[in-house]
Amino acid sequence: MEMMIDADAVEASNAARERALRADYAALGEQLDRRGIAIAEILDKAEAFAVAIPSWGVGTGGTRFARFPGEGEPRDVFDKIEDCAVIQQLTRATPTVSLHIPWDKADPRRLKQAASRFGLGFDAMNSNTFSDTADQKLSYKFGSLSHADAAVRRQAVDHNIECIEIGREIGSKALTVWIGDGSNFPGQVNFAQAFTRYLDSMKAIYAQLPPDWRLFTEHKMYEPAFYSTVVQDWGTNYIIARELGPKAFCLVDLGHHAPNVNIEMIVSRLIQFGKLGGFHFNDSKYGDDDLDAGSIDPYRLFLVFNELVEAELSGVDGFNPAHMLDQSHNVTDPIESLMLSAVEVQRAYAAALLVDRKALAAFQDGNDALMATQTLKAAYRTDVEPILAMARFNRGGAIDPVAAYRASGYRRKAAVERPAVASGGGGIV
Amino acid sequence: MEMMIDADAVEASNAARERALRADYAALGEQLDRRGIAIAEILDKAEAFAVAIPSWGVGTGGTRFARFPGEGEPRDVFDKIEDCAVIQQLTRATPTVSLHIPWDKADPRRLKQAASRFGLGFDAMNSNTFSDTADQKLSYKFGSLSHADAAVRRQAVDHNIECIEIGREIGSKALTVWIGDGSNFPGQVNFAQAFTRYLDSMKAIYAQLPPDWRLFTEHKMYEPAFYSTVVQDWGTNYIIARELGPKAFCLVDLGHHAPNVNIEMIVSRLIQFGKLGGFHFNDSKYGDDDLDAGSIDPYRLFLVFNELVEAELSGVDGFNPAHMLDQSHNVTDPIESLMLSAVEVQRAYAAALLVDRKALAAFQDGNDALMATQTLKAAYRTDVEPILAMARFNRGGAIDPVAAYRASGYRRKAAVERPAVASGGGGIV
Amino acid sequence: MEMMIDADAVEASNAARERALRADYAALGEQLDRRGIAIAEILDKAEAFAVAIPSWGVGTGGTRFARFPGEGEPRDVFDKIEDCAVIQQLTRATPTVSLHIPWDKADPRRLKQAASRFGLGFDAMNSNTFSDTADQKLSYKFGSLSHADAAVRRQAVDHNIECIEIGREIGSKALTVWIGDGSNFPGQVNFAQAFTRYLDSMKAIYAQLPPDWRLFTEHKMYEPAFYSTVVQDWGTNYIIARELGPKAFCLVDLGHHAPNVNIEMIVSRLIQFGKLGGFHFNDSKYGDDDLDAGSIDPYRLFLVFNELVEAELSGVDGFNPAHMLDQSHNVTDPIESLMLSAVEVQRAYAAALLVDRKALAAFQDGNDALMATQTLKAAYRTDVEPILAMARFNRGGAIDPVAAYRASGYRRKAAVERPAVASGGGGIV
Amino acid sequence: MEMMIDADAVEASNAARERALRADYAALGEQLDRRGIAIAEILDKAEAFAVAIPSWGVGTGGTRFARFPGEGEPRDVFDKIEDCAVIQQLTRATPTVSLHIPWDKADPRRLKQAASRFGLGFDAMNSNTFSDTADQKLSYKFGSLSHADAAVRRQAVDHNIECIEIGREIGSKALTVWIGDGSNFPGQVNFAQAFTRYLDSMKAIYAQLPPDWRLFTEHKMYEPAFYSTVVQDWGTNYIIARELGPKAFCLVDLGHHAPNVNIEMIVSRLIQFGKLGGFHFNDSKYGDDDLDAGSIDPYRLFLVFNELVEAELSGVDGFNPAHMLDQSHNVTDPIESLMLSAVEVQRAYAAALLVDRKALAAFQDGNDALMATQTLKAAYRTDVEPILAMARFNRGGAIDPVAAYRASGYRRKAAVERPAVASGGGGIV
Repeated sequence: MEMMIDADAVEASNAARERALRADYAALGEQLDRRGIAIAEILDKAEAFAVAIPSWGVGTGGTRFARFPGEGEPRDVFDKIEDCAVIQQLTRATPTVSLHIPWDKADPRRLKQAASRFGLGFDAMNSNTFSDTADQKLSYKFGSLSHADAAVRRQAVDHNIECIEIGREIGSKALTVWIGDGSNFPGQVNFAQAFTRYLDSMKAIYAQLPPDWRLFTEHKMYEPAFYSTVVQDWGTNYIIARELGPKAFCLVDLGHHAPNVNIEMIVSRLIQFGKLGGFHFNDSKYGDDDLDAGSIDPYRLFLVFNELVEAELSGVDGFNPAHMLDQSHNVTDPIESLMLSAVEVQRAYAAALLVDRKALAAFQDGNDALMATQTLKAAYRTDVEPILAMARFNRGGAIDPVAAYRASGYRRKAAVERPAVASGGGGIV
Repeated sequence: MEMMIDADAVEASNAARERALRADYAALGEQLDRRGIAIAEILDKAEAFAVAIPSWGVGTGGTRFARFPGEGEPRDVFDKIEDCAVIQQLTRATPTVSLHIPWDKADPRRLKQAASRFGLGFDAMNSNTFSDTADQKLSYKFGSLSHADAAVRRQAVDHNIECIEIGREIGSKALTVWIGDGSNFPGQVNFAQAFTRYLDSMKAIYAQLPPDWRLFTEHKMYEPAFYSTVVQDWGTNYIIARELGPKAFCLVDLGHHAPNVNIEMIVSRLIQFGKLGGFHFNDSKYGDDDLDAGSIDPYRLFLVFNELVEAELSGVDGFNPAHMLDQSHNVTDPIESLMLSAVEVQRAYAAALLVDRKALAAFQDGNDALMATQTLKAAYRTDVEPILAMARFNRGGAIDPVAAYRASGYRRKAAVERPAVASGGGGIV
Repeated sequence: MEMMIDADAVEASNAARERALRADYAALGEQLDRRGIAIAEILDKAEAFAVAIPSWGVGTGGTRFARFPGEGEPRDVFDKIEDCAVIQQLTRATPTVSLHIPWDKADPRRLKQAASRFGLGFDAMNSNTFSDTADQKLSYKFGSLSHADAAVRRQAVDHNIECIEIGREIGSKALTVWIGDGSNFPGQVNFAQAFTRYLDSMKAIYAQLPPDWRLFTEHKMYEPAFYSTVVQDWGTNYIIARELGPKAFCLVDLGHHAPNVNIEMIVSRLIQFGKLGGFHFNDSKYGDDDLDAGSIDPYRLFLVFNELVEAELSGVDGFNPAHMLDQSHNVTDPIESLMLSAVEVQRAYAAALLVDRKALAAFQDGNDALMATQTLKAAYRTDVEPILAMARFNRGGAIDPVAAYRASGYRRKAAVERPAVASGGGGIV
Repeated sequence: MEMMIDADAVEASNAARERALRADYAALGEQLDRRGIAIAEILDKAEAFAVAIPSWGVGTGGTRFARFPGEGEPRDVFDKIEDCAVIQQLTRATPTVSLHIPWDKADPRRLKQAASRFGLGFDAMNSNTFSDTADQKLSYKFGSLSHADAAVRRQAVDHNIECIEIGREIGSKALTVWIGDGSNFPGQVNFAQAFTRYLDSMKAIYAQLPPDWRLFTEHKMYEPAFYSTVVQDWGTNYIIARELGPKAFCLVDLGHHAPNVNIEMIVSRLIQFGKLGGFHFNDSKYGDDDLDAGSIDPYRLFLVFNELVEAELSGVDGFNPAHMLDQSHNVTDPIESLMLSAVEVQRAYAAALLVDRKALAAFQDGNDALMATQTLKAAYRTDVEPILAMARFNRGGAIDPVAAYRASGYRRKAAVERPAVASGGGGIV
């Protein structure tokens, strides 16, 4: 298996940190032992944890006002796969890549080869009917899967089926559908008719899904539509998944909800009714900010994982959520942001594993609200960094991924090999 | 049929206004005629429109900080019925009263007599398991229908069944269930278990529902619980109604949603999937402010009615939403606020009837967003007050309900007959 | 004075509508007369009302996900001025254009000639330090006026001074400064130091302001920065205006506030403390949606104008707010949206003029909340369209601007004359 | 000095935990040492940290829907002082009590004696003009300090002056003014006139302030007023403090802002412009939920303290913020919630002390957003519980305050000594 970064460089970086890590790990192990927790079991689970990298995340993002490119940005899907390989090499928590079509369209055999060089696999396929391409016959300006015109809907359905076909060839097992369909003015669309059209389109896509695939639909409150959105919330998303059938599930993006909404409760509902498909992890303060996972409200991320671990440990039937990052990196090196975001998601998982669930259940049954919430807090405030670092170290990754990455000079080399693309600085407004 | 306010006084008030009303009505009729609308048809529908008065709305409301009582507040349900009779006498749009048990508990025969004196009927029954009564065996401090303790749940179920029994005797045809169950701390309750318990309790209530009754469940984002609420949004509410069966429907209170949520779209979804039960009308700027309907965002109220009229005119199967006001009147005379709120809801309905639906559909199909929204606006900005005033006048009500009410001296007389209750001024905080 | 649209076409459009307009105007005149209002006085004020058109508004907008171009989009500032001339010709409410530098950079004499051909003037100049240009020396990726590096700040200051110089030559009297400076991560910037640097930069710009100019600063809660923004709200904006001096004022964009914020109250505070500079009118449901003015919450727009008219009529010292539209037209013809938005702003003004302020003051002093709010509502629900149409008609515009515009075939001709630019369909995400 | 809880019981509780504490403290000390931090210095600062207890916080709170009393609730201010003594005894972080007048009105000498028995002092005085008392001459239904009627304003001013007088006798050095003044309807009050009246009233209060006192004003977005609030945000609050003079400062309650607002940035602004008075600590998910500090978003609390520590360490002139809890305990034992909340605030302080400020400044200057935010995170995720527990232990408090409290049986004894007051279960709605 190839490595993008020289193994010696990683080893050197680790060598300088191993001793401190072992000390911290031992101290934490002792503390957890006193709390009745075997650190080795948590370590095992942390090592087995994985979250997919979105191919589009390794490029620099932007806003409608401007995009400020970074150095050495990937020029195509093969550059993107190399960047993803770096992330996986150093974190050992991101073994798969999620592609976006048509952005990442290429010969499937070449895609497969490029990924397997680094031991990478492919996660869910993502279709794009929220923007037009140069050669596209009909425009998605007024919608795609819910468009008033059947020909546009057909085109959008066909595009999704093409995504399934590509995915099938490269070993993906899921299709994620997010659309921007909606309206900017009261009255612009008939809500019920648009939703009926959407459901019909989705049924046509669902019908082409291979038997071992899952279909993920993603809800979002607003943007790019600013008055109404066809799949606006989990209520609508749940109806979709139910109408489509047993292979259809809801995808939760943490930044796609109304202000103040209790997201972990939505997660619980979807688990309970068998329709949680997975996550697009990121963080947000205002809207779909697509900030790094755990950077704004880390406790919320922990509370989401508290639900997931609860379901995992209690053996909820069919529980198998997909984990994926979905972020926009406007002011950081995307590789660094993605590495730390993967770690942050893993951190929430590891911390949630520390919850004393037997005690919690007793406090809940006894209406001891204070001790119930303290039980969560006791797990949350435990610094599990030594476990995460040890998981990386054990599996050949970096104790400190950002330090190892910076020391490697990867970005500088990329800047040389990948000439700058034209600035997207103009903005759309 | 008795009248609380002397008919001559109403007549005198109308006499001073009839001429101007007829002029305005004629001018509007001409304008609508030019737009292809027969004013008489709108008038007929406006006259037939009705919205229920909540018994608790005729008393002065308050906040956790204080309650500032008004003069002549009703002392019991019979005083409340008299106040509701005033509202109906002057507006002719509020023929029913909705009771809240145990607040309004009384001999059913006496209740029926008291209402029929004024030609009033009874709307949905409301149960209360969000507060304790002095003689209550078990407390609802930690929940009611979803409580961890089966005995508390049983007590809450029994209370709801009692509400059905009272309602059956007085001619009600629906039970509205709103609970405050939820939590104030992460971890305090297990979301899935609490929801399962809630569903089980509701099934026990549903089983006791007479065949011609409907069961309305009401969602609310937060308050009185400040971290999670069992029935937190329409998604959960929809699941409830579906789990319970064909007599179960969702009730929409306009102030119970997250900030920025598109409520008219939720209304559309519930209509489309056969689960819209009805409304608690009011207005809000921040949370469940319970302000007078249409006082903060009248266009939103219109957009909700645009969905309702669309469903009414297109003959959606089983479409029969219940209308009720649910407001807290902290700084106004509740009778005045309820009269104007009923008129405001009726106004939204009348304006929505003016929408040129054929043109709207064509603009929607043609993606003419600008003209589609202008079609709504043309209806909305038409001042339908002459139609509403004529509807009241034709049916024996007041052209200007507040003027007639103030001229009648009703409140002054009530202040004498109903000695002030102790101030609730202390607050809870 | 030249006209972009043939005068005969406008006349023909008006001829078909004049009779109905006169009937509606007469009926409204009678009704207002009964309410003690002389319609002619309102008409005079409506005719005198003006709102500036943003040059960037005549192009099709977009989001970070995609831009879907329209037909016949302006290729440069001279095309934009022609489109603005159409808007003014038909509405007679938009006599000025607001330029954005460097987007609209051109020989000032040519700019002046191009505008004066159509009798147009220039409103406030807008600088742009939120995106990079191809030839720019230093990047604004990490800020501009508040950047940690003094050289970047100097470059941004110089750009603003250049905007003043261009504006001086073309007859502008104000500079509007909106920056995207902020951060995406807690800790990324030191709040206090960044604000100090911003204030220093602004002082350098202020020092170059001609004596008869005003400096407008604009606050915005978020976007493009998603954790913190340097000028995040009116509190910071007020401090800026006060620190800079008597020529500095705050600009209010209706879409730049936190959810649920009472914007009309902010307007009142800024008026009271002498720092209201003016407005960027638009509407929003979620964030800085830049939707058409009055399209989402028309009552809010009225309440803002209620404050403005209150100040106008009570003769607040130095009260002279600038009116400008600032919208993004993603799914409509921008000319149509701008025409109707200008009318919508004018509508809010005309309706606010109808408020019975003497009665209102008495209700306020007497704590008659119900009648106070009804006094506003009585003005708001009066359909003032006949006054607005008559104002346009009297001054040579179109009774129905959109109908006249569509009949003129302007956009079709533009589509021929202005070859399509490359699609912005790719998106940034 | 008296103790409410038997010292032996505390000692027994500590004895069972001391060994583990010493182990954890030593391990943390080693880790911090590696990071260049002397744990003893952090411990010293943690020991010196203090936050005031609000007298009203020791009673069970409620909502407008219901209040569910707890056992052994304090009957008067003297019971409250005893409960505060328990909190201080076990946490050693809460040496003062903040009184609310008239709720806590009593002979000042008795108050002083009662507090000094336990070594407690008095923090800021709180006036109450948001509710009426039985013997009050004029009602605050329509406002207090901003009321349209000068006599009501005078009464409210006099009440505040009385609070100062009581405070002067018991050793308080500050007055906190929070009012509920505002409106529930557009038009109900004239914003500018109401604010002018408020400022005049406040000037009259300020004039009576002793030379060594501070005046704290508190802003709040909404509730109890639901359309507008006189002191609605920090912008207005800042203007107030500036208008009043050098002894006037702004108080920040974490739950009083609009959704999504960046509170730590407001804190920074107030520090920078010399007007930060202090805090009412609590947490919120939706509105003014008054939940336990740090229970919903602990990272936000840390980010606030990051600003405070930055100011403390950089020696901002006159920086001296008051710390107070302000919470409503509806489902927990208030003593337990207040103990843990005090610890939670102290935790945020201790963690903020761990931030490597030199590194942070360098990352900020170099626009290294990723490492800047990681610098905060490294401090935040350090589990400082051993430092906090050691601080309590060193000063005679409890290593585990809740365990010691529960073991003491204090609440059971209180339940016997303090007969239950009547249920507030009825609710206001």
